[in-house]
Amino acid sequence: MSSSETRPDQPVITGATRLYAIVGDPIAQAKSPAVYNALLAAAGRNAVLVPWLLSTADFDAGLRGLLRAGNVDGLVFTYPHKQAALPFADVVHSRARQVGATNALRRRLDGRWEADMFDGVGLVRALEDVGTSPGGRTIWLVGAGGAGGAIAFALAEAGASQIHLTDVEADKATGIAVSVAKAFPGVIVSLAPPSLETVSILINATPVGLSDADGLPVALDDALPASLTVVDIVPREATRLLDLARASGCRTVGGAAMVAGQAAAVLDYFGETAA
Amino acid sequence: MSSSETRPDQPVITGATRLYAIVGDPIAQAKSPAVYNALLAAAGRNAVLVPWLLSTADFDAGLRGLLRAGNVDGLVFTYPHKQAALPFADVVHSRARQVGATNALRRRLDGRWEADMFDGVGLVRALEDVGTSPGGRTIWLVGAGGAGGAIAFALAEAGASQIHLTDVEADKATGIAVSVAKAFPGVIVSLAPPSLETVSILINATPVGLSDADGLPVALDDALPASLTVVDIVPREATRLLDLARASGCRTVGGAAMVAGQAAAVLDYFGETAA
Repeated sequence: MSSSETRPDQPVITGATRLYAIVGDPIAQAKSPAVYNALLAAAGRNAVLVPWLLSTADFDAGLRGLLRAGNVDGLVFTYPHKQAALPFADVVHSRARQVGATNALRRRLDGRWEADMFDGVGLVRALEDVGTSPGGRTIWLVGAGGAGGAIAFALAEAGASQIHLTDVEADKATGIAVSVAKAFPGVIVSLAPPSLETVSILINATPVGLSDADGLPVALDDALPASLTVVDIVPREATRLLDLARASGCRTVGGAAMVAGQAAAVLDYFGETAA
Repeated sequence: MSSSETRPDQPVITGATRLYAIVGDPIAQAKSPAVYNALLAAAGRNAVLVPWLLSTADFDAGLRGLLRAGNVDGLVFTYPHKQAALPFADVVHSRARQVGATNALRRRLDGRWEADMFDGVGLVRALEDVGTSPGGRTIWLVGAGGAGGAIAFALAEAGASQIHLTDVEADKATGIAVSVAKAFPGVIVSLAPPSLETVSILINATPVGLSDADGLPVALDDALPASLTVVDIVPREATRLLDLARASGCRTVGGAAMVAGQAAAVLDYFGETAA
């Protein structure tokens, strides 16, 4: 556990502090509280983000309760709740509707709850930061859950030429591929795993890597093409996939970069309706 | 709002931080977050207390949701929820059962929720701190809500000789007076307002004083006997009642002293079942 030796900046909690929560299961590994709270403290906002552990079985009653709290102004959703949260929104932004998932729910000034999706936005920004803009690229995206879907749409919106979308649950990948192809007719969407030599960017959007015992999200050779940019959205600095990519000389983007990009966008979104 | 100039100590929030909440309406004025979080930080516990605004209309659904959160280990209840929270406990300590109210609900290791009541304990400790132990005293207690009831039992348990209990809702006072007299047959319990000259301790246990516009909780002369110890549980440093007591040369106990005594007791209670 991080101790008081290096005390990160975070908002001071008073009775008047407004609350945000990041809702997931598991949640203990989440880096978001530190990232969001540093941004909130720097902006001088009297609001704090706390972790919120909610199992799938407890999700409906737990979320209904959260939405009743008068000082909870925004909720961030992470694995495995991004799809389940969407029906709780009174108003749904097109990005969340396209993906069928939300990572950010905010209370509007009229009291209604509004859903949007920032997963893809954060990743595209992180790719640009390492000099690998998605425009014109062939990309292999592994994982078609809530995060994977949002990333697929954001990559298409950012001008990717070809996206290979694979998932152990083939139905999920098919559904998203059809939706992306319909929304962005200029993008070639494939459900077949590509030959790595044809790919510029490989993205893991599955939770594989969260546990130390996890292997790779897909079978890969012992060395990757050094021209590849490898992204792992798992919120850890080291995963089997990132280790392999670094050993192969690839550019890498870890979950932390994506979280940082998202956090800024989500806090802007929450702040627009702050009382 | 308190800014970063004087940054009080509080636990660093990570994904693994355990949560406590103080649940009330209003909640913005509550001093408990600062008091509890300073104690938690000093003890090195990876847990934080946040304010939780829940209206009476939203209480049931809101509390059901809170109890589903896997990282919420304890809840503190304040006005007006101390009675309404009690039926949500699976196990009720005798102090809470006597009063028919709870100010602290903790998650047991077996997953069940257990209720206790520390309002009276904190106040008795605060009185002892100013040299006015309740033993053998005649006391006027104004307010027979959740806090007032708990205080009545604690004063009786601490050996008060006579308690005058009054409330604008006479039925509430009657119910508690009967229960206290039954549980502590050696204590004289009266429902009539006393002559102030016969009283050693005057206690306001109503919310009157929370608002700047509030007057006194009961009609009083322009000067009080200097021998009186005056207690106001409203969590403000200055109220009309405390101002009058100070001007009259009385010893005073404010809500802050009661909150401090309670906070230590409640956190011990929560800590016994920490995972």
